[in-house]
Amino acid sequence: MSNKKKIAVVLSGCGAKDGSEIHEAVMTLLAIDRQDAFYQCFAPDIKQHNVINHITDEEMNEDRNVMVEAARICRGDIKPLVEYDPADYDALILPGGFGAAKTLFTLAIDGQDFIVNDLVERAIKSTYDVKKPIGALCIAPVMIARLLSNVKVTIGQNKEMSSLIEKFSSYHEKTNHGEICIDRDNKIVTSPCYMLDARISDIAQETDSLVKAILELS
Amino acid sequence: MSNKKKIAVVLSGCGAKDGSEIHEAVMTLLAIDRQDAFYQCFAPDIKQHNVINHITDEEMNEDRNVMVEAARICRGDIKPLVEYDPADYDALILPGGFGAAKTLFTLAIDGQDFIVNDLVERAIKSTYDVKKPIGALCIAPVMIARLLSNVKVTIGQNKEMSSLIEKFSSYHEKTNHGEICIDRDNKIVTSPCYMLDARISDIAQETDSLVKAILELS
Repeated sequence: MSNKKKIAVVLSGCGAKDGSEIHEAVMTLLAIDRQDAFYQCFAPDIKQHNVINHITDEEMNEDRNVMVEAARICRGDIKPLVEYDPADYDALILPGGFGAAKTLFTLAIDGQDFIVNDLVERAIKSTYDVKKPIGALCIAPVMIARLLSNVKVTIGQNKEMSSLIEKFSSYHEKTNHGEICIDRDNKIVTSPCYMLDARISDIAQETDSLVKAILELS
Repeated sequence: MSNKKKIAVVLSGCGAKDGSEIHEAVMTLLAIDRQDAFYQCFAPDIKQHNVINHITDEEMNEDRNVMVEAARICRGDIKPLVEYDPADYDALILPGGFGAAKTLFTLAIDGQDFIVNDLVERAIKSTYDVKKPIGALCIAPVMIARLLSNVKVTIGQNKEMSSLIEKFSSYHEKTNHGEICIDRDNKIVTSPCYMLDARISDIAQETDSLVKAILELS
């Protein structure tokens, strides 16, 4: 048996505008591997909300499956989110992207009265209940702020989103490029990533710090 | 005017089994940004050879465009390969994946008598002619070996591919995880990446070294 820690990563498709933000997802996997832990990717086995042409930003007349597309990011090694059990992992991390904000929860469609996917809600709450750490990048902390409330998170500097986080009785901490926010009491670690006008090296720096903090808390 | 060097990166879709290998592509962009150069992604504006379900490995009954899918890897900022002019860049890098071996050249379809896409051939030869460095990852060095011949490249340890490289009057240098091959005379830098049974951190190490060598040669 390996003593390596195992981290579950929840993806939501493949591409910033309708799926997981690829840089955030890949850098999370890299940070986990570099810090000598294992990763296992998961995604809900459901239809994507939509398919966006990433050059024109126009909607394409296509149907794609969230898990099938997310598998591109992890070279095929992915499990349906329904199989996630926090007993099998040391931590849970959710990268961002519009896939998160359309599929994992519906913020980009329904605004502040968004719905959270049942399996995603179960994954987050069950992990929190057994006191294992949760990481969330980019826009995903907004969902954590509502599901758990009374937690401290960051989405960078966005006023509308930080107000929404405080409406959910959570606390927003402003962050800049390369910074993360750690709520030690609740074992929640968040980072702004592309919620700021970031460079790809900022994302790598943040995921590296986020995974380090997650492993320390686990 | 910025003094930063500019590197063109040629993508071939989005996903190891029918497009650019995502880790190799993203790590290349990260290495370029971390070493304080600019990147610009390019891809041929053509139909993908096929679309593969990355979980089941089965072909899907869909058509996708190489450039539109590749745009997912670079958040939409991509140019058609027809616009590539080596005068505008300091170097050219080609990540691997089955998109490379199906779309950029047809090795995975036609075997050793593969055809190279016209625009890809023009990009590589024109860059070589003006003595600017070229980087190629994973399976892409096989194409470099045939187009330029008399160059030294690596694809790792694969005997069939190293024989093919020598059949093209090029020289194959064996490499292991994290290693790269530098042909200083021809300014060709190659790395095995997922041609070996690699970890994502191996890819990051190789792209980091490859970009460093490319920038020194430019």
